[in-house]
Amino acid sequence: MNDLKEGVCLSAMWFNHEQCCWTSNETTFAERDKCPQWKSWAELILGQAEGPGSYIMNYFMYIYWALSFAFLAVCLVKVFAPYACGSGIPEIKTILSGFIIRGYLGKWTLMIKTITLVLAVASGLSLGKEGPLVHVACCCGNIFSYLFPKYSKNEAKKREVLSAASAAGVSVAFGAPIGGVLFSLEEVSYYFPLKTLWRSFFAALVAAFVLRSINPFGNSRLVLFYVEYHTPWYLFELIPFILLGVFGGLWGAFFIRANISWCRRRKSTRFGKYPVLEVILVAAITAVVAFPNPYTRQNTSELIKELFTDCGPLESSQLCQYRSQMNGSKAFSDNPNRPSGPGVYAAIWQLCLALIFKIIMTIFTFGLKVPSGLFIPSMAIGAIAGRIVGIAMEQLAYYHHDWFLFKEWCEVGADCITPGLYAMVGAAACLGGVTRMTVSLVVIVFELTGGLEYIVPLMAAVMTSKWVGDAFGREGIYEAHIRLNGYPFLDAKEEFTHTTLAREVMRPRRSDPPLAVLTQDDLTVEELQGVINETSYNGFPVIVSKESQRLVGFALRRDITIALENARRKQEGILLNSRVYFTQHAPTLPADSPRPLKLRSILDMSPFTVTDHTPMEIVVDIFRKLGLRQCLVTHNGIMLGIITKKNILEHLEELKQHKEPLAAAWYYHKKRYPPSHGANGKPRSRVHYVQLICSFQDGRVGEDDDTNQGEEEEEAVRLLDDTDL
Amino acid sequence: MNDLKEGVCLSAMWFNHEQCCWTSNETTFAERDKCPQWKSWAELILGQAEGPGSYIMNYFMYIYWALSFAFLAVCLVKVFAPYACGSGIPEIKTILSGFIIRGYLGKWTLMIKTITLVLAVASGLSLGKEGPLVHVACCCGNIFSYLFPKYSKNEAKKREVLSAASAAGVSVAFGAPIGGVLFSLEEVSYYFPLKTLWRSFFAALVAAFVLRSINPFGNSRLVLFYVEYHTPWYLFELIPFILLGVFGGLWGAFFIRANISWCRRRKSTRFGKYPVLEVILVAAITAVVAFPNPYTRQNTSELIKELFTDCGPLESSQLCQYRSQMNGSKAFSDNPNRPSGPGVYAAIWQLCLALIFKIIMTIFTFGLKVPSGLFIPSMAIGAIAGRIVGIAMEQLAYYHHDWFLFKEWCEVGADCITPGLYAMVGAAACLGGVTRMTVSLVVIVFELTGGLEYIVPLMAAVMTSKWVGDAFGREGIYEAHIRLNGYPFLDAKEEFTHTTLAREVMRPRRSDPPLAVLTQDDLTVEELQGVINETSYNGFPVIVSKESQRLVGFALRRDITIALENARRKQEGILLNSRVYFTQHAPTLPADSPRPLKLRSILDMSPFTVTDHTPMEIVVDIFRKLGLRQCLVTHNGIMLGIITKKNILEHLEELKQHKEPLAAAWYYHKKRYPPSHGANGKPRSRVHYVQLICSFQDGRVGEDDDTNQGEEEEEAVRLLDDTDL
Repeated sequence: MNDLKEGVCLSAMWFNHEQCCWTSNETTFAERDKCPQWKSWAELILGQAEGPGSYIMNYFMYIYWALSFAFLAVCLVKVFAPYACGSGIPEIKTILSGFIIRGYLGKWTLMIKTITLVLAVASGLSLGKEGPLVHVACCCGNIFSYLFPKYSKNEAKKREVLSAASAAGVSVAFGAPIGGVLFSLEEVSYYFPLKTLWRSFFAALVAAFVLRSINPFGNSRLVLFYVEYHTPWYLFELIPFILLGVFGGLWGAFFIRANISWCRRRKSTRFGKYPVLEVILVAAITAVVAFPNPYTRQNTSELIKELFTDCGPLESSQLCQYRSQMNGSKAFSDNPNRPSGPGVYAAIWQLCLALIFKIIMTIFTFGLKVPSGLFIPSMAIGAIAGRIVGIAMEQLAYYHHDWFLFKEWCEVGADCITPGLYAMVGAAACLGGVTRMTVSLVVIVFELTGGLEYIVPLMAAVMTSKWVGDAFGREGIYEAHIRLNGYPFLDAKEEFTHTTLAREVMRPRRSDPPLAVLTQDDLTVEELQGVINETSYNGFPVIVSKESQRLVGFALRRDITIALENARRKQEGILLNSRVYFTQHAPTLPADSPRPLKLRSILDMSPFTVTDHTPMEIVVDIFRKLGLRQCLVTHNGIMLGIITKKNILEHLEELKQHKEPLAAAWYYHKKRYPPSHGANGKPRSRVHYVQLICSFQDGRVGEDDDTNQGEEEEEAVRLLDDTDL
Repeated sequence: MNDLKEGVCLSAMWFNHEQCCWTSNETTFAERDKCPQWKSWAELILGQAEGPGSYIMNYFMYIYWALSFAFLAVCLVKVFAPYACGSGIPEIKTILSGFIIRGYLGKWTLMIKTITLVLAVASGLSLGKEGPLVHVACCCGNIFSYLFPKYSKNEAKKREVLSAASAAGVSVAFGAPIGGVLFSLEEVSYYFPLKTLWRSFFAALVAAFVLRSINPFGNSRLVLFYVEYHTPWYLFELIPFILLGVFGGLWGAFFIRANISWCRRRKSTRFGKYPVLEVILVAAITAVVAFPNPYTRQNTSELIKELFTDCGPLESSQLCQYRSQMNGSKAFSDNPNRPSGPGVYAAIWQLCLALIFKIIMTIFTFGLKVPSGLFIPSMAIGAIAGRIVGIAMEQLAYYHHDWFLFKEWCEVGADCITPGLYAMVGAAACLGGVTRMTVSLVVIVFELTGGLEYIVPLMAAVMTSKWVGDAFGREGIYEAHIRLNGYPFLDAKEEFTHTTLAREVMRPRRSDPPLAVLTQDDLTVEELQGVINETSYNGFPVIVSKESQRLVGFALRRDITIALENARRKQEGILLNSRVYFTQHAPTLPADSPRPLKLRSILDMSPFTVTDHTPMEIVVDIFRKLGLRQCLVTHNGIMLGIITKKNILEHLEELKQHKEPLAAAWYYHKKRYPPSHGANGKPRSRVHYVQLICSFQDGRVGEDDDTNQGEEEEEAVRLLDDTDL
């Protein structure tokens, strides 16, 4: 479908340009692209292959097909499966962290995403198929898991299936089974025990095996961009590799900021209400700008392949039109170290334009309402930048081989620099800058290219890229999109470094109404119903009695509702004033009271608890590692409050915004005036602290101002109370 | 030192055979092994290179050097650093799970292990250097971490450094940085957050980079066994690959059983008291048997390299002496598909003998009191088996290329089967069978060999090997050694599938004396001292009061002791009848009582608690994920007991031994007679259960015997009580 934009194969419509010409009689190597069966649109409609008329005809047909594909894709997504848009990886990350998005992994999403992915890639938009393939694989995993009750009934088990599915998805997308497992481990999955590692490994194995049996590239190889370089790399080359890493990190940081601010504008302004128009517009601009430049016109995967490939004697690409060293003629030369010819200069200009074009278009494309992956565009940008640097290095080494830098290892006429390797390193660096992956990225790239020898350069570039990117913002593109969309995702990577305690985060807060609790044996059905109706909590702690607030267990709202309904329908003698009890044995009741209702079976007798003095650092750690949704807070065995995942996320957000200076002030002063320091005892220093903390909160650090009263001071006093100063 | 067993380089003592002959003038390829500078011992001492006398002389010197090296190694280990023996991986796993072995990662262990590792490998014993290198790397990590207080003061942080160090160790041992990271993740580390993944990655990167800069193999390659195969593999070949996987699994299971039972005998009999003698004996037998067979005489790494390498036209190895197909003469042939010549037959016989020899010797060698790794011997065994299978397949394909199996893809004279690939797959399978690694193993092997194309065969063989091995016993060799040595290690891989509750595992048990607890404000110093002296627990729960046993916190024995000592020394007025309090404010005391002692600062206010109804499945999960050492058990906020890691390990052992039939009986009957089933109410069915469970416990299943009274019945009743039947 991609080649349909340029022409059509007369012998068989469904062949692309290359396949069409396989059966051709034209066996000359240089002419392998041209064969009578393949007709460009101009040839077919105007009957002529050359000339400005045919160029315009081809141009027009290119835009026509691009717009058709893009329109079809966005309409299908909009009408049938709104969840099929985007890469899906942020949502899968959120789902794997325990959140449920109904229908996100359903059969409609699967079908529509599969179809529209083909259309979107064929439309020539600056997007890739790899991310969406992970989503497609997860849909398959989810649908298959419904066949087995063991998996469909247990959310945790289902998440393990999804982890394995995303490994299989990457395994198929890149032909990189081990990279897929690591991608699932590093980027997608939240909780990844060794058991899941083995299962993902097996899933990726089967995926790779089936892929190889189908043999989609016709060369018995799994990988998309197999390359073979013939020269080792030299220590000095680490400098350009690290520079490429810096470029990748900068590009990643810039892309994330630009893309997120564009997506935020789309969400907040009227513009976002016309997704079809937006896709058409972006596709039109892409097609109009892309056609004149051969490097943007061609399929992005093919572009990457060309950039990765080293110039050999058989290479007919413009990038390899070096001047022959021997006789000065402008013929193709197989001499390894080459002065650049006019073809190379032209190619470099076109590559620079392509680089700018790709950078701009990718920012506006990622986030459109069509399936859109980010791997291929990022890699293309890196590969273009890398190839340019590589050619520059090569020419530098050719013209200045007597520099002390080159002297030792680069003799005249020797093949010392491989521009394709630079492209590969650049691609890894840019992808690393955007996604902030490390290990999995290196493994994917070296599975993708077979470049085992070049693992140290790859690692150096990817680490640099991550560091540079992290300096401008800790989030990768997927985390940024999760935050943009407000999904309840507790990032496992970010360290919690604050010093707050569980009691400061738990609900109810001081000003809130008391927590809705149930007592274990002295509620009536009516009272229970009342609690359920008045509140909207998902569950209720059960305590011994109002007097002794000791915690017994936790009951889910859903279970209580169902149990009450069942009791009304089935059990006779249950009235509104029937006693409800969660204990083992029924409480002793007056003789005339109605039959009590036993609800012990719905009581979770082992709710997760922490004490109010537990540092939030530990609470966050527990939530992450055990995948909790809520946790009860007790003090000396007495029920105090509850912390949910949402509370923690709110707390983190609060800390980020305005509480940080407060905490910093408190720490600073605690250190400066330790409790034992004040000779005059507590009261004096307390006032001092309160003042200082308040001034910190107002941003008036260091000023002595006695007018800070009211709410702020109260909070400071509470903070000081809590810290035992 | 390894080549010193065979001869000596006259021009420079420290050159090995190959390096010695590099500078030689003998440039003929076939004669590259022979050069005047290199003298075998017979040449040097007797002055003749050929004949039975010189053979015996060489034989004698070979044994002499082997014994000298082995003796030196075992003496150094015994005298200076007993911890330097073995591979060290079981102990590092235990240390990373939270246990502390003092001195195990110290500077003496580092020095002695480095020296003796060289000696042990040079002595020709059937052991490798890869496992011990992980130990050496961890020693370095541990010593470096003492330079930074952030790491030396925090055990958890130090463990992260050790995880990264073990990745670096494997990275250096195999030249496989990514494999190293995965090895650390899959095999060594207990808790491996993403942060550690990145740091390990960086450590492995630097290790690989430094290794490459040193360039130890003189070929600018990181890897030990770089191979290049020229033919793809075919679907049908998966059958022999899977068979190799089965062989690997069987060998692994057999090796683990045999080795563990031998090590147990060594531990329990007098034989284990003479480690030096044992090493000498094993070294002598190894040397005597190894010398006559060229495949056992040479260095094991070189053997593996030779077995992995495909026969090319330049290969002078005996394994490649095929009969030339063209003219029938017995010359070397570069024809790809070859009938075997006499050299190949001889080689196969020698390989079979070498296989048997390696299998037997490795069982007795692993566990000796010298540094000994298992990777290289296991890989050698697999490589030998694989090469034999490979040659068999090759001959089969040659003589029966018209079989329907070969017909489609193996034409006459075509090179369809690569015996070296079989050796590689076999090596991976055997290593997988012994260690039960999967992903990391595949990555290591393909980093080791550069065989990216062969990832599916490798994965298939490794998975098969793991399944077959697991069928005979779930433990890998390292877990087996951990259990043999009785280290407190809670395996994170094994699933806990039993249905016991926390209250069944916690201490005190029903028959035990009550738990030693402290009350928060009515103990005297004397009483506290008494509790400390009478018990040997590491810590004590603190409760509100004897009447209301609500849990307040947890105080460590060590902290209490130190606090009491400090108080006696520094604080005046602290007498034996001084009140001790853990509360915020001092309790109100009679006027004449001595000054109370505040111990709030040593109270852990956020001890980890679970309720008594928590299933052990969840408790074990919490222990593993949070790395706990103990956990308090409460019921409705009231302190009931404590569960330590040791209790859990004991419980697991109990379940394995005799409780399983009990649990099974209970489950079976609960299912068969659900609570609602008995029409006659509870009493009848309870008796029935008790009887049945008791008969299960006695192994008299199904018999109806009314004499089972006493303790067993009591336990059954308790079990039924606990299950709400």
